[in-house]
Amino acid sequence: MMTDWLTGYTKEVDDIIMTYLPKEEGHQKTVLSAMNYSVKAGGKRLRPLFMREVYRMFGGTGREVEPFMAAIEMIHTFSLIHDDLPCMDNDRYRRGQPTTWVAYGYDMAVLAGDGLAIYAFETAAKAFSMLAAAAGTGSEDTASQAAVARCIGLLAEKSGIYGMIGGQTADVELTGRSLDREQLDFIYRLKTGALLEAPMMIGAILAGAGPEQVRTVERMAACVGKAFQIQDDILDLTSSQEVLGKPVLSDEKNHKTTYVSLYGMEQARRDVEELSREAICILEGLPGNHEIVRELILMLVTREK
Amino acid sequence: MMTDWLTGYTKEVDDIIMTYLPKEEGHQKTVLSAMNYSVKAGGKRLRPLFMREVYRMFGGTGREVEPFMAAIEMIHTFSLIHDDLPCMDNDRYRRGQPTTWVAYGYDMAVLAGDGLAIYAFETAAKAFSMLAAAAGTGSEDTASQAAVARCIGLLAEKSGIYGMIGGQTADVELTGRSLDREQLDFIYRLKTGALLEAPMMIGAILAGAGPEQVRTVERMAACVGKAFQIQDDILDLTSSQEVLGKPVLSDEKNHKTTYVSLYGMEQARRDVEELSREAICILEGLPGNHEIVRELILMLVTREK
Repeated sequence: MMTDWLTGYTKEVDDIIMTYLPKEEGHQKTVLSAMNYSVKAGGKRLRPLFMREVYRMFGGTGREVEPFMAAIEMIHTFSLIHDDLPCMDNDRYRRGQPTTWVAYGYDMAVLAGDGLAIYAFETAAKAFSMLAAAAGTGSEDTASQAAVARCIGLLAEKSGIYGMIGGQTADVELTGRSLDREQLDFIYRLKTGALLEAPMMIGAILAGAGPEQVRTVERMAACVGKAFQIQDDILDLTSSQEVLGKPVLSDEKNHKTTYVSLYGMEQARRDVEELSREAICILEGLPGNHEIVRELILMLVTREK
Repeated sequence: MMTDWLTGYTKEVDDIIMTYLPKEEGHQKTVLSAMNYSVKAGGKRLRPLFMREVYRMFGGTGREVEPFMAAIEMIHTFSLIHDDLPCMDNDRYRRGQPTTWVAYGYDMAVLAGDGLAIYAFETAAKAFSMLAAAAGTGSEDTASQAAVARCIGLLAEKSGIYGMIGGQTADVELTGRSLDREQLDFIYRLKTGALLEAPMMIGAILAGAGPEQVRTVERMAACVGKAFQIQDDILDLTSSQEVLGKPVLSDEKNHKTTYVSLYGMEQARRDVEELSREAICILEGLPGNHEIVRELILMLVTREK
């Protein structure tokens, strides 16, 4: 259920992301169009939403968070484009629309994913010039250069082989084999968790949070990420293609071990609630106004798509 | 013809790159192994060689250039892995070895390319912590944080949609159609040129070169890049698979317009020499000892693979 405030916030975040998309011109127009098609296809914008709200919660008021908001959504979209490829999950629909390889061809989908992955860093690096420009005006409400540098490293770490791509690799490699709890936990932590940890940690760092606070944010985000992934497994079994915008029962089709197949539906539902409660409990130990971040976390538990 | 000094220098550069490769362990071991297989498969290490020598020419003596040397080679390797995929050039051999998708499978090759692209930025970002550590020792022979920040942005720009990936896109899209000179120039400038401009400019920036000097380095590198690509077209027609380590006549097979097909062999050979001369002429206007950079440029003209 989309509440009004969330619709408004999502629209604001959407507008920010659109500002950073490349213009569709030049000889490489097709790939630019494929990149933008994929980002515009929408989604919950959960990662940039969390980033902005954690940033605000820690007192951030600058604009250098905006290129990072766009960057995290580009990384997320890049991973979806490549996940959908015939050689990976071979999915033809996502969010009710043809996937990128169906719409633009196999080769352009590989290139559009590559393009978004790299453009995420080109975009994030724009925060440096924003800082330099802000320094000229004497404005003090912006992050330090060192904070931006750390965030770029973190963005790479959490989306790369020790984060999202690492999780995706293990997932691909172990598909069709039955996983134990430790393997499933590893995949969920890296494949889904890392890309929720990154935006929340980046929000905190840019707003000037200390190292201990950033670690606390990471723990909170890890709970959110795990709850989010378990909810995904539940929805794949209980929802419909109309609501979800993509085929359901895909885990069964791909012979995938999921949280539900390992722990049962009842336990899975309980754990989503338990993990959300834990995340909110950690949140309450942090400074600032928690309201929006708490709402975002609660929304994850009740979401139907 | 590999001269002795070049063999030694390439070995040094190789050793530096190896230091930055990820350990092959954990549940994502297969992709890590595929990444390292592809980087270790070798090649001329031309980009990190140029980076280090331009850095030294401008008086650089620090170590923060090293993560960037590894990063540029990772980006280069990532592009080769994805270029070789069945949905792209469908090549089975490179440098005399099976390509990554042949050795590790289609899905792992996509992920290994993705992994290297992102890990390049994770690696480049290590230069920030090297600076922070060096600052603690009072050493002054390292680049500024702002220089490192600029180089990360440049690495993304030159390897992304306005650089290498943009050129690759136009190349894929226009394959099988006959190109005019402007289109061919666009592809060569982005696909090959950008990834030679990046390392030389990064070397200059890290060593403290001024904006005008960096632009001069960019012009020099653009000449080198074009000469390099024309030489590639020539070798594809005149060399053998034994020498080249990959199938020859692939441009004809793929119905590709090349510099040779547009301008003829004689003109192509003349232009390689002309462009090298121009690059060296630009080089001579720059400060420092030019000897090694000049040798590297000359090597391009006489290379047989």
